[in-house]
Amino acid sequence: MTGADLENLMNEAALEAVKKGKERIEMRDFEEARDRVIMGSKREESFSEDEKRITAYHEAGHTLVSWELPHTDPIHKVSIIPRGMALGATQFLPEEDRHYYPKSYLINRLCVALAGRAAEKLVFMYVSSGANDDLKNATALAEKMVAQWGMSDKVGPINFGRGEEHPFIGRDISVQKRYSETMAWLMDKEIRNLIITAERKADEILLRGRKTLEELAAALLKDESLDKEDVEDIIRRTKGVEPLRKISN
Amino acid sequence: MTGADLENLMNEAALEAVKKGKERIEMRDFEEARDRVIMGSKREESFSEDEKRITAYHEAGHTLVSWELPHTDPIHKVSIIPRGMALGATQFLPEEDRHYYPKSYLINRLCVALAGRAAEKLVFMYVSSGANDDLKNATALAEKMVAQWGMSDKVGPINFGRGEEHPFIGRDISVQKRYSETMAWLMDKEIRNLIITAERKADEILLRGRKTLEELAAALLKDESLDKEDVEDIIRRTKGVEPLRKISN
Amino acid sequence: MTGADLENLMNEAALEAVKKGKERIEMRDFEEARDRVIMGSKREESFSEDEKRITAYHEAGHTLVSWELPHTDPIHKVSIIPRGMALGATQFLPEEDRHYYPKSYLINRLCVALAGRAAEKLVFMYVSSGANDDLKNATALAEKMVAQWGMSDKVGPINFGRGEEHPFIGRDISVQKRYSETMAWLMDKEIRNLIITAERKADEILLRGRKTLEELAAALLKDESLDKEDVEDIIRRTKGVEPLRKISN
Amino acid sequence: MTGADLENLMNEAALEAVKKGKERIEMRDFEEARDRVIMGSKREESFSEDEKRITAYHEAGHTLVSWELPHTDPIHKVSIIPRGMALGATQFLPEEDRHYYPKSYLINRLCVALAGRAAEKLVFMYVSSGANDDLKNATALAEKMVAQWGMSDKVGPINFGRGEEHPFIGRDISVQKRYSETMAWLMDKEIRNLIITAERKADEILLRGRKTLEELAAALLKDESLDKEDVEDIIRRTKGVEPLRKISN
Amino acid sequence: MTGADLENLMNEAALEAVKKGKERIEMRDFEEARDRVIMGSKREESFSEDEKRITAYHEAGHTLVSWELPHTDPIHKVSIIPRGMALGATQFLPEEDRHYYPKSYLINRLCVALAGRAAEKLVFMYVSSGANDDLKNATALAEKMVAQWGMSDKVGPINFGRGEEHPFIGRDISVQKRYSETMAWLMDKEIRNLIITAERKADEILLRGRKTLEELAAALLKDESLDKEDVEDIIRRTKGVEPLRKISN
Amino acid sequence: MTGADLENLMNEAALEAVKKGKERIEMRDFEEARDRVIMGSKREESFSEDEKRITAYHEAGHTLVSWELPHTDPIHKVSIIPRGMALGATQFLPEEDRHYYPKSYLINRLCVALAGRAAEKLVFMYVSSGANDDLKNATALAEKMVAQWGMSDKVGPINFGRGEEHPFIGRDISVQKRYSETMAWLMDKEIRNLIITAERKADEILLRGRKTLEELAAALLKDESLDKEDVEDIIRRTKGVEPLRKISN
Repeated sequence: MTGADLENLMNEAALEAVKKGKERIEMRDFEEARDRVIMGSKREESFSEDEKRITAYHEAGHTLVSWELPHTDPIHKVSIIPRGMALGATQFLPEEDRHYYPKSYLINRLCVALAGRAAEKLVFMYVSSGANDDLKNATALAEKMVAQWGMSDKVGPINFGRGEEHPFIGRDISVQKRYSETMAWLMDKEIRNLIITAERKADEILLRGRKTLEELAAALLKDESLDKEDVEDIIRRTKGVEPLRKISN
Repeated sequence: MTGADLENLMNEAALEAVKKGKERIEMRDFEEARDRVIMGSKREESFSEDEKRITAYHEAGHTLVSWELPHTDPIHKVSIIPRGMALGATQFLPEEDRHYYPKSYLINRLCVALAGRAAEKLVFMYVSSGANDDLKNATALAEKMVAQWGMSDKVGPINFGRGEEHPFIGRDISVQKRYSETMAWLMDKEIRNLIITAERKADEILLRGRKTLEELAAALLKDESLDKEDVEDIIRRTKGVEPLRKISN
Repeated sequence: MTGADLENLMNEAALEAVKKGKERIEMRDFEEARDRVIMGSKREESFSEDEKRITAYHEAGHTLVSWELPHTDPIHKVSIIPRGMALGATQFLPEEDRHYYPKSYLINRLCVALAGRAAEKLVFMYVSSGANDDLKNATALAEKMVAQWGMSDKVGPINFGRGEEHPFIGRDISVQKRYSETMAWLMDKEIRNLIITAERKADEILLRGRKTLEELAAALLKDESLDKEDVEDIIRRTKGVEPLRKISN
Repeated sequence: MTGADLENLMNEAALEAVKKGKERIEMRDFEEARDRVIMGSKREESFSEDEKRITAYHEAGHTLVSWELPHTDPIHKVSIIPRGMALGATQFLPEEDRHYYPKSYLINRLCVALAGRAAEKLVFMYVSSGANDDLKNATALAEKMVAQWGMSDKVGPINFGRGEEHPFIGRDISVQKRYSETMAWLMDKEIRNLIITAERKADEILLRGRKTLEELAAALLKDESLDKEDVEDIIRRTKGVEPLRKISN
Repeated sequence: MTGADLENLMNEAALEAVKKGKERIEMRDFEEARDRVIMGSKREESFSEDEKRITAYHEAGHTLVSWELPHTDPIHKVSIIPRGMALGATQFLPEEDRHYYPKSYLINRLCVALAGRAAEKLVFMYVSSGANDDLKNATALAEKMVAQWGMSDKVGPINFGRGEEHPFIGRDISVQKRYSETMAWLMDKEIRNLIITAERKADEILLRGRKTLEELAAALLKDESLDKEDVEDIIRRTKGVEPLRKISN
Repeated sequence: MTGADLENLMNEAALEAVKKGKERIEMRDFEEARDRVIMGSKREESFSEDEKRITAYHEAGHTLVSWELPHTDPIHKVSIIPRGMALGATQFLPEEDRHYYPKSYLINRLCVALAGRAAEKLVFMYVSSGANDDLKNATALAEKMVAQWGMSDKVGPINFGRGEEHPFIGRDISVQKRYSETMAWLMDKEIRNLIITAERKADEILLRGRKTLEELAAALLKDESLDKEDVEDIIRRTKGVEPLRKISN
C-alpha cells in the first residue's frame, strides 16, 4: 500500500464520517473505507453503446500492443465490465516475480499504458479524457526511469529522489526539491521524450494490427470479458500465426 | 462534492458559528452551511434594467453557441432570475451519462463557457467582471485538457497531476509542484491557446447569428425564463430552419 | 467582510488580550476589536498646516477626476477630518447596486484611485508615502482585471485565481501558485501598464482642471468637509458649465 | 510595537524561561522580556580606544549629513555611550508629527542612515560590520519606497505589499509572494539604485565637511554625548556660518 | 542513525500500529519496527534464475572495480543471498577507521557504487531499475563532494549546507534553500560530471577485466557467498598476478 | 547560544530520550544534552598515523597563515588532540573585545579559515572531506560580508537579512526570501569570489612559508599541542626574524 493509497483511504474515511454525521473519524470508518478503496463498489449505472464501443477499443489496444511486444507481462483477462472508477480493465499476470525491471521492459510498459488512448485515436480520430489514469501512470513510470533509475543518457545515472513516494505524507506534499529548476526541466524533457516515443511505437503496432484490434474489440463487445485463451484464439485467427511465447525479458 | 465545495462549506460553517457567537464550530453549523451552499439563498434585492439586459445577452450567448455546436449537451433551461451568486443561468441536460469526454466535446464546452462574455463584447462593446466564473471554469477545464488528458501536442500525453483537486486540502493548498517552471510555462501557453481559440470561435458564431441572439435576449427580458421548446421556437423562427438534432459526440 | 478584514480583526483581538494581560484570547476581545476595526477610533492628535494642505489637494484630486470621468460612482462627501488611519476621505455613493463592473468603469476607478497622488505630484512637485493605500487598492484592482476578469488581451480570458482572497486564510498566505513564473511576469507587466496608463489620464485631467482643483482644496481647507452640492457649486463656478449628470456605464 | 518587535519579545521570553529552568513560558517571562527589549540592559564591558574613535566618527557622520540636508528631522542628541546592542546613537527629534513622508525627505533619510558607514570609509579607509543595522534600516526603507509607495518610475505606482510587516507572524515568515521573480528583480535593482545614490550623496557631504566631521568626532570623544546646542556650536565655529534652520519638507 | 533512518522507523511503526488495529502508535511499535529496519526480515520468496544471474554480475561488478582501484576499502564478503530489500550485497571492511575522506578515495567510491550497474550494462546490454539505491547513494555522495567539501573547482570551496541531513526533520523536508537557482544548477552540473566520469572509469575497468568478472559471477552463482580469500583466489587465477595489497589512500 | 546550537540541543535531547526508552523528552534530557554539546565527549578511539599527519599540517596551515597576516587574532594554542567532533584545533585569543569587524580583518579571517585545507592541498596534493566545517564557517562569514555588511561593491550597501540566524527557528527553516533569484545569484557570485580570493592568498603564504609549515607540523606531531610561545619560537627559528607584533586592525 503506497502513500497515495493511504492518502486516498484517509479522505474516504473522513467522507464516511461526515456522511454518518459523526464529529470524529473512528477506526471503523477507516476499515469501511479500506474495503471500498480496495475492491471498488459495484456500479449499477447504465453506459451508452458509444461508451461501450470506446472502452472495447481502448482495452483491445492495451491487449494487442502488449501481445506484440516481447518483453511484457502476459495478458490474464480483458473486460469491459465497469468496476470501481474504471469502465474496463486489462489485467496482466507476470509469469514470475520480478525484482529488477530492465529498461526494455519498462519502455514496453509505457507503450502498453499508452495503447488504449492510441487505439481510440486510431479508430475514432480523437482523444478523450478517458485515458487520464493511463497518462498518470505512464508519466510516473517515465519519471522514475529518468530521475531514479538513470535511464536517460542526457540526465545520467543520478538519483535526487524525484518521484519518490513518501508514506504517510503523500508523494507531492511538503518535500523540498533538492535539484535546480534547470535540472528539473532537463528531466521533464526526457520524461516527455520517453512517453512520446512510446506512444509512436503503440501507434505503429495498432496500425499494422488494425484487423486484430477490430476482432478483439468485437469479441469484447459480444462477450464483455475475454481470458488469455480467447485472446490467443483471436490473434491466431487474424494473424494466421501462432502467438509468440513471451520471451522472459 | 469536490474539495473546493468542501472548503467553501467549512468557511460558511465557520462564519455561521461566528455569527451566532459560538466559540467552536459544531456539526449543526456544517449542516446549515451545506443547505445554503447547495441551494443558494433567495435574493430579494433589485437589479437595474441595464444589468438585466446584460444578463439576458450573456445567457443568450451561452444558449446560441451551445445550439450551433454539434457536440455539446442540449439546453435544458435559460433564466435571468437571480439565484445564489449568479444573476442568470443556462442549464444543460446531457441526454446520456457520459464517462468519457472527447476533445471535440471539451473544445465546444470551452466555446460555450466563453460565449456569455463574447455576447457582452459584441453587443455592448466591452467586457465586464461578470464573466469571472465562466473564465475560471474555462481555465480549469483547459488546464485539465492540457495537463491531465494529453490534449496538447506540444506538451504531449503526460500527466503530472497539475490541476487536480485534493479533497479536504483544497486544490491549491500545500501540494508541491512536480514539474519544472519551463514545463509549467509550456502548459500555460497551451492553456491560453485553447481558450483564445475557443473565444474566437464563439465570437464568429455570435456574429453570424446576431439576429437569433437578439431574439433570445428579448424573449429572456420578456419572460425571464425559457425552456428547451421556447429556445427551439426562436431558433426555428429566426434561422428559418429546423434546429439540428444533437449528434452524440 | 473579507479575509483581510478577518485577519486584521484577529490581530486586533490578540493585541487586546495582550494589553489586558490575559493569557488567552476570548470572544469578548474579538467583539471589542471588531468595533474598533469597523468604526475607527477617534483621533485627537494635531496635524500640521502642511499636512492639512497636502490632504486637501489629495482629496480634491480624487474628487475632480471622479467628476470628469463619465463612468464612475458619484461623490457623496469629501472630508479632511482625520478618522481611523486616514487623514482624509472621499466617499462615493453608487446610484444603483452594481453586480457587473465594465472594463471602462474599472479603468476610471483606477484613475480616481491614483488621482490623489497625481494631485500631490502636480501641486507640490513630489510624491509622498501617503498614497500607500491608494496604490495598494489600485494594484489589487488591476490584478483582478488582468488575472481574473480577462481584461488584458496579452494575457487573454484566463483566470487561474490570482488575486483571490481566501476567507480565514488571508489572501497571501499558504496558497500555491498554479501558473508559471513567466505567466506571472506577463500579468505583472499588464497590471503595471493598466496602472501607469490610468495615472497619466489622471495627470492630464488635473492639469486641465488645475483651477477647479485649487478651489476644491481651498474649500476643503476652509470647511473641512464638502457634500455633493458643495462640490457641484465649485465645479459650476470654476468651469462655467453645469456639472455633467453621470452616465450610467 | 511592530511584528518584528513581538517576534523578538517572544524569543526573549522563551530564553528567559529556559534560563530559569521552567518547562513552560509564562506571562511573567513575557513581561520581563518586554522590559529588557524596550529599555536595553546596561552594558558595563569596556571598549577599546579604537572602537570609541570609530564610533565617534560614525555618529559624527550621521550628525553632519543630517545637518547639511534640508528636509530631515533635527538632531536631538548624539552619544557614544554604549546602550543595548549599540555602541553609540544619534537621536533625532521631529519638530512636528508627520503623517506623510515626501520622497525628498525619505531620500535624505537614506543619506543620513548611510552616513555613519560613509564616515568610517572616509576616515579609516575601510568599511566594517558595525553598519549592519543602518544598512538593514536603509534597505527596508528603500524597499518601502519602491514597492509600496510608488517612488520608482521604472516600477511605477504599484503596491503588491512587498516589505509589509505582518503582526504576529513576523515580516518574513510564511507570506506568499504575489508578484513574479522578474518584478522582484526590477524592484531589487531600484532599491539598490536608491541606496547607492544616497551613499554617494553622503560621501560628498562628508568630503566637503571633513573639518566639521573631525571637530564633531573630537567633541564626542571628549564629552561622550552632545546635545543640539553643542552640535550647533561646532557647526557655527567650523563652517563660519549660522546653522540653517530646518525647512519643513 | 541518520534522520532518514528515523523517518523510516516512524513510518514502519505507524504501519505496525495500523496492522494491529490500534488507534495510536506506542513505544512497542517503535521497538519492533527498529528491529525490522536494522536487521531486515528474512525473505523466503523464490527468485528466478535470470534475476540470480543479474545479481551475481551486479555484485561481481562492485567487487572487481573495488579491487582494481588503489584507494578503496577492501572487500569483506560478497553474497547473492537476498536479505531485507536487497537481492545481493558486497560488504567492505575498512582496514582502519577513517576520519578524513580524500577526494581520490571518494571518486573511487563513486566508481565502485556505479560498478554494479556498469556490469549489468556490459553483460546484458541494458540497465535495469535494480541500481536505484546505488544511484541514490552515489548522487548523495557526489552532492556532498561538490556542495559541502569544496571538491569542484567550478563551484569553489563553499558550503551552503546543501545535502545535509537534519535529524528528526528528514533531509528534504522544510529546510529553506540558502543559495540561488543558478548556483544550484552549477552544482547539479558538477554532481553529474563527477558521476558520469566515475561511471566511465567503471566501464573501462570491467571491459579490461571481463574474464575476472565472469569468474566472480560464476563463483557467486555456484556458492552464493564469497569471502575475501575466495575473491583473491579468483583474481590471482584469472589475472595471473598476485592481487595488489591496498595502498592506504 | 545561537539558533543552530539550540536546534542541535533539541535533537540531542530527543535522541537521549529515545535511548533511555522514555515516551517523552524531559528537562533532564535537555540538560544532559547541553553538557555534551558544549564540552564534547571525550574520544578514546585511535587515529592512524596518516590522519595525525594530515591533522598536523591542517592545523599548522591555520597557524602559519594567521601569523603572517597583520589583522587577525593572535594564536592561543594549537593542538592535534581529538575532542568532540574535531581531530585538532587552532585556538585564537583576541587581545581585546571587538565590536566592529573591519573588512580587512574579515578577509584575513577567511584566509585563516581556508588555510587548513590549503595546507593539505599543498603537502598531500589533494583535498579531503575534513575541511567541511572550515568551508561552512567561511561561507557563512562571506555571506554575512556580502549580504548584511555591504562589503561587495557589486551588491552595494544593502541588507535584506540574508544569512541571519533566527533563534528558536534555526537559520534555514521557514523564513521567506525577500529578494529576487537574480539578486541571490549576484550575491552568490560575490560570496564565491571572496572565498576563492582568500584561498589563493592562503595558498601563496603557505608556499612561501613551506619551511615553517613543516616545522610547525613536526612539532605538533611530536608534542601534540603547542602554545603561543612554542609557535613564536618556531617562527623565529625558521624565518630568522622576530615574529611581528600584531597590529590592531
